[in-house]
Amino acid sequence: MRLYRVRSIDEVLDVIKENFTHLSAEQVDLLNAGGRVAAENIYATEDVPAFDRSTVDGYAVKAADTFGASESIPALLNLSGQVKMGEKADVLPPSAVIYVPTGGMLPEGADAVVMIEHTELLDDLLNLYKQAAPGDGVIKKGEDVSCGFLVLKQGSVLRAAEIGLLASLGIAEIKVTKKPVVAVLSTGDEIQPWDSPKLEIGQIRDSNAPAIMELAKQAGAKVFYGGIVKDDYDVLRTKAEELLTKSDMLVLSGGSSVGVKDFTCRLLGELGGSLLVEGVAVQPGKPTLMASCNGKAILGLPGHPVSALNIFNLVGKAVLAQMLGQAESLWQPTVKAVLTHNIASQPGRTDMVRVVLSLDSECNIQATPVFGRSGLLRTLKEADGIVTVAANTEGILAGKTVEVVLIS
Amino acid sequence: MRLYRVRSIDEVLDVIKENFTHLSAEQVDLLNAGGRVAAENIYATEDVPAFDRSTVDGYAVKAADTFGASESIPALLNLSGQVKMGEKADVLPPSAVIYVPTGGMLPEGADAVVMIEHTELLDDLLNLYKQAAPGDGVIKKGEDVSCGFLVLKQGSVLRAAEIGLLASLGIAEIKVTKKPVVAVLSTGDEIQPWDSPKLEIGQIRDSNAPAIMELAKQAGAKVFYGGIVKDDYDVLRTKAEELLTKSDMLVLSGGSSVGVKDFTCRLLGELGGSLLVEGVAVQPGKPTLMASCNGKAILGLPGHPVSALNIFNLVGKAVLAQMLGQAESLWQPTVKAVLTHNIASQPGRTDMVRVVLSLDSECNIQATPVFGRSGLLRTLKEADGIVTVAANTEGILAGKTVEVVLIS
Repeated sequence: MRLYRVRSIDEVLDVIKENFTHLSAEQVDLLNAGGRVAAENIYATEDVPAFDRSTVDGYAVKAADTFGASESIPALLNLSGQVKMGEKADVLPPSAVIYVPTGGMLPEGADAVVMIEHTELLDDLLNLYKQAAPGDGVIKKGEDVSCGFLVLKQGSVLRAAEIGLLASLGIAEIKVTKKPVVAVLSTGDEIQPWDSPKLEIGQIRDSNAPAIMELAKQAGAKVFYGGIVKDDYDVLRTKAEELLTKSDMLVLSGGSSVGVKDFTCRLLGELGGSLLVEGVAVQPGKPTLMASCNGKAILGLPGHPVSALNIFNLVGKAVLAQMLGQAESLWQPTVKAVLTHNIASQPGRTDMVRVVLSLDSECNIQATPVFGRSGLLRTLKEADGIVTVAANTEGILAGKTVEVVLIS
Repeated sequence: MRLYRVRSIDEVLDVIKENFTHLSAEQVDLLNAGGRVAAENIYATEDVPAFDRSTVDGYAVKAADTFGASESIPALLNLSGQVKMGEKADVLPPSAVIYVPTGGMLPEGADAVVMIEHTELLDDLLNLYKQAAPGDGVIKKGEDVSCGFLVLKQGSVLRAAEIGLLASLGIAEIKVTKKPVVAVLSTGDEIQPWDSPKLEIGQIRDSNAPAIMELAKQAGAKVFYGGIVKDDYDVLRTKAEELLTKSDMLVLSGGSSVGVKDFTCRLLGELGGSLLVEGVAVQPGKPTLMASCNGKAILGLPGHPVSALNIFNLVGKAVLAQMLGQAESLWQPTVKAVLTHNIASQPGRTDMVRVVLSLDSECNIQATPVFGRSGLLRTLKEADGIVTVAANTEGILAGKTVEVVLIS
């Protein structure tokens, strides 16, 4: 077997980009498109709005007719009807106004709308106390979206704004990348189903699988549970092969432990896969296997729960983003907080430290490290977020402001 | 009708807390609990782990037997078998070691585990090159979770860590708050279904409803579309009454426009509801109606799409969080960026300015305001996030560092 060295996170992310690609697309209804990744560019084929519209309740005017109008010397114009919502407006006669509600069509001949608050109607004669410039109170045809505008870019995640914009164009179905299917297989002779009411001494419940499945769902995957297999190579191989035919990513929970690691490497050889990563220089989480097998991903996670979740957040989610064809984000939202205790860190390794957030007496946000081993899931449950100590530093001193990524 | 003044955002949030309360609970399977809000406190009824476990692959020892061991003077102890995963360990005989894999049970009589890397096995005699302190390489019984520990607090959102912790305790079903049901009803004579292939002049498609439905889903609601009603009081009333029987929150899209506003106020009077908010001092979004009707919420949103989505993000999501019984978050993740242009703002009003993020030549994040009216959905689609200008300021100068909340 070729020997792989432990890689930095950045190297691992590069390996992911080189070795995995986006899945095929499917058509979804607009109401189910939220959070999905666009698999095509969509350009507007019409103008929005399709006609000049009023943005206020008021009177459509020819702006020139109002020039010079003021509180003391109002312009006087004849009221000539009103625009009905959803209907074509009449043409504006000379020296006249037409009432138009918000969103109503601007009559031909008008080029501005004066808000009702700046007018007074005396019988059919309208007093305008404010002059209008052309374009005031009007959204022009195509001002929101003009024909040919790139409404949706391939690789972008559909937010409410994109959904609204597509709806405004009558695009009720769109192509998105298929959800990657993630199968989670738990390994270990001591592992019992998580709904086991009682355990024998020496056994523990499979707590990692449901937690990893939740993270995969958050990242946009469809997940299913492959169950638990004992530390037996033939059983593992049969099950892994079966799950790989039904999934895009197979996660072996406990699959980077010493016993299973050898199994996994042998498995890959026999399945024609290639081992891409044999360890990540990150704490918690170092023992990690990643392989590709005909474009599918196999991820072997450490058995320690905090390590497993940390690695899935870093590596598993990056693989899924790549399979989704998701455009890379250049920024990550964080909470800024003042560190309450020193964090020591080993250079050459990225340390990801769990912290609890709290407010001090002056309502500044403080971050207090949660000390505790990566075997303790409680330490992750108690934490609000993660502070990352870069590989090229020896730690962070108390009193420094740090950026905290909230835990999801 | 009693006159309401325009309220600040903080006042509106207080009104929401006073007038709405959490819905009833339902039992869900652990695999469907992610993102849901806990409706009960859950305490551990057993210790996790239930036995002392090794955290490494190595040899279980009595630490005192290793004292003084070093590279040059190893301790010599007899190998006395191995611990099998998932099974009870044998008792450690005097002056002996037992092999134990990661996660295996610590034998009775042992109090530490020495990593295999620090040992050498010569026939049945183990050379230990490192002394161990009691507790080294061991997770003690109950060290992760001890019986009685508060595993899940009512009002907290279930993340992967909570799901894992519950699984480790065999808790496969939990009580969460029911999802609030949100009905969205669009109003306006000009509004056509969003899948209309062609529009008559003067008409527009219902773009707000699907966008608002997406935001409500993100906030943990079940959503359904109530369709479009014309500006006709009797029709609106019949439809609103029908939708209120099936929902916890009724959103009237375009329901704060001048025509419909009067309808909404009349409707509330006749349905026995009370009007809580008649305007929010925020830009974009000022015209906003909020009412309660037998514990249910009615929200009238402005017709301008950016205003509607902004208000739903601020007000609608707060109502949903209250209905979910969700504990308030004291911090919000943001991206820090340098503002590229001045933002002017009217004192007394909170301005929420859309910005595009980009990287400058030195990879600093910059925020550039997107100027454009609240009728233009494109300006929201082009934006990456929102910068909030507090009501008590006149704006923010270019060059200042601002906190940007990403748009979802």
